Amino acid sequence: MELEISPLAKPFPDMPQIAGVTLRVARAGYKDWGRCDLTYAELAEGTVVAGVFTKNVCCSSEVELGREQAKAGKARALIVNAGNSNAFTGYRGREAVEQIMGQVAAHLGCAPSEVFVSSTGVIGVPLPKDKARAGVEAVLDAEPCSWEDAARTISTTDTFPKGAMTQAMIGGKTVTLAAIIKGSGMIAPDMATMLGYIFTDAAVSPAFLQQALSAANLRTFSCITVDSDTSTSDTVLAFATAKAGNDPLTGEDSPGADAFTAALLDICRQLSHLVVRDGEGAQKFITVDVTGAVSDESARKIGLAIANSPLIKTAIAGEDANWGRVVMAVGKAGEPADRDRLSIGFGGVWAAKDGQPLADYNEAPVAEHLKGREIDISVDIGLGDGRATVWTCDLTHGYIAINADYRS
Amino acid sequence: MELEISPLAKPFPDMPQIAGVTLRVARAGYKDWGRCDLTYAELAEGTVVAGVFTKNVCCSSEVELGREQAKAGKARALIVNAGNSNAFTGYRGREAVEQIMGQVAAHLGCAPSEVFVSSTGVIGVPLPKDKARAGVEAVLDAEPCSWEDAARTISTTDTFPKGAMTQAMIGGKTVTLAAIIKGSGMIAPDMATMLGYIFTDAAVSPAFLQQALSAANLRTFSCITVDSDTSTSDTVLAFATAKAGNDPLTGEDSPGADAFTAALLDICRQLSHLVVRDGEGAQKFITVDVTGAVSDESARKIGLAIANSPLIKTAIAGEDANWGRVVMAVGKAGEPADRDRLSIGFGGVWAAKDGQPLADYNEAPVAEHLKGREIDISVDIGLGDGRATVWTCDLTHGYIAINADYRS
Repeated sequence: MELEISPLAKPFPDMPQIAGVTLRVARAGYKDWGRCDLTYAELAEGTVVAGVFTKNVCCSSEVELGREQAKAGKARALIVNAGNSNAFTGYRGREAVEQIMGQVAAHLGCAPSEVFVSSTGVIGVPLPKDKARAGVEAVLDAEPCSWEDAARTISTTDTFPKGAMTQAMIGGKTVTLAAIIKGSGMIAPDMATMLGYIFTDAAVSPAFLQQALSAANLRTFSCITVDSDTSTSDTVLAFATAKAGNDPLTGEDSPGADAFTAALLDICRQLSHLVVRDGEGAQKFITVDVTGAVSDESARKIGLAIANSPLIKTAIAGEDANWGRVVMAVGKAGEPADRDRLSIGFGGVWAAKDGQPLADYNEAPVAEHLKGREIDISVDIGLGDGRATVWTCDLTHGYIAINADYRS
Repeated sequence: MELEISPLAKPFPDMPQIAGVTLRVARAGYKDWGRCDLTYAELAEGTVVAGVFTKNVCCSSEVELGREQAKAGKARALIVNAGNSNAFTGYRGREAVEQIMGQVAAHLGCAPSEVFVSSTGVIGVPLPKDKARAGVEAVLDAEPCSWEDAARTISTTDTFPKGAMTQAMIGGKTVTLAAIIKGSGMIAPDMATMLGYIFTDAAVSPAFLQQALSAANLRTFSCITVDSDTSTSDTVLAFATAKAGNDPLTGEDSPGADAFTAALLDICRQLSHLVVRDGEGAQKFITVDVTGAVSDESARKIGLAIANSPLIKTAIAGEDANWGRVVMAVGKAGEPADRDRLSIGFGGVWAAKDGQPLADYNEAPVAEHLKGREIDISVDIGLGDGRATVWTCDLTHGYIAINADYRS
């Protein structure tokens, strides 16, 4: 099945090199395909790392190991396998990951725990050790490649390569953040899933990098959904090489910490939106703004209830401003809400206020808004100051075609 | 849009009259259609009632009022409006319900609180009081009708009328339970939703009827899902006319109480399955059996995580025994699970055991099973004795067509 490029795709941006990061790709042949499927990022000595991982309790060995490795905060290399998720493969899967870690560590002269491994692709098939060994050998010898090559190589069912960059000033020094991500659906076919990697030349302590990444995750990757399914492999890692020459950031009070956390939040938001833009079958990018909830977390849960509702996502696909379905989703979220204080709007036009349809509701601009690619849904709960923004895509025949019509 | 009859439909059963229950239908004209859309059940003096209602906090006035009325335990009449859900209509919607209650109460000489009202159909439009008044007047004058007529009249987007009956012996007396239900999706277009009505001639106290109905609900209506969306109007009422002549059932220790609760559970299970069989776009009826969970409630939550997963439902639509997606759903359920103890099977054949694909897994009988209309998924968590069964349907192009391709 040849997938068409998402109509919501963004062109791959110009992205600068990050000092201390070298990218290479090779072909391990995890599937019967001609493309490269093994990505390697070599990281300068002194690189620190932070990570956020899936909460799925049936996670892969890669996630189990990576979660422990990230706690130690040190990284020298990243390997990403595409075409085999190595999930649900028991001890044999774990052995394959440990083999890769050892092989790269021996090459670099570092500890195996400083080598991070991710895999996505078919499940239930242990990552073949012989192909992994030959692939790693080849990638260690390969020429450096571009961000776009790396973004293409980590992809599986993605319809376009995904990258983002941003910069921040820290005490007169410019630090740069560059990132690639893959994913099209919380889980795409064959457990193809969300993997994101952020690289920066900033000098930052592992603890503060983890704090900033966790905070950004809560407002970005944790606020997107394609189909409500939670992958067994989701991973986002941030690597900081400390090559920019800034005074190291060690906490919120370090000069420039605000600029760095803002830049990290920005790049995480860019990445998370790119995943939604490649959501399976997506034709529209939907932003759900929830205000007036009893807390920000309550607003996020209400937003996700709306963004996960098949009835709302199909209504948007049908360009139907069906605010009744939004009422339903607010009510089922399990969060405080009062039907008679609820207001709902599309594209900046309120359709219902205080629990009743507006008498002078003008549907024409709303109908026009819904014909576009970028759809805004606003919900005011009318109870407090809690707010959140959540992003999703519509639910279309394309989703069914990708997931049902073709055998995986 | 003319909907085809679900391929999973069941013929309407032969159903006996229930002493103390008289059904009538009429046309209120809530929509521009020729069919009857107002159903009336007159209940003998002394009829007791119990109810279970949607947990959606944005529920309709009908649900708010019905929940209070059911607590008092007495009923003389039921009115069901089709074509207008009267949800999200503020005080005007509530006035329309109170008008109907008063009109029927005046006719019967009972308290308005003994008249139960349900409505389904378009939302955000207050139930028109004039049409309701004329419709109620007509229905009170109408000839008695059959169960099938009543089942058709309460329907909205249902593709077939739904009824069920069963009997039980209580101290040498036969008691009969007959029921009708409507619904095709937790919410169908325009908030068409699940409404179920059970009538029995058994003599049973309101408290015990409520206890038995709540217990049955937990194992039937609370164990089905079509699309994970939760209606604002879901209602199941049980009416008992005490005409069978049995010694009244007042608690679990009453002679015959076991037989009655078993019969009530049986009829609730029949009704709940009929709703799934009319799930929007459904082509396959899916039974998910979860065993080995840490508790029955944990098993139910895991079962619902599986039954609500779009990726599993599309895989079944595609006749794909994608057990990896089942692993994913178990892991995201938020319940105790251990990847390395998990076993998954289809149609009685295990595909994976103890966290790994079976070496001698024979896919041929599984592939054959998945071609059928009735699909069984078995999941053993391997941790305890908790078990539950959950029912759902597959997710197909039909669902998208019903909910996105046509404006509501």
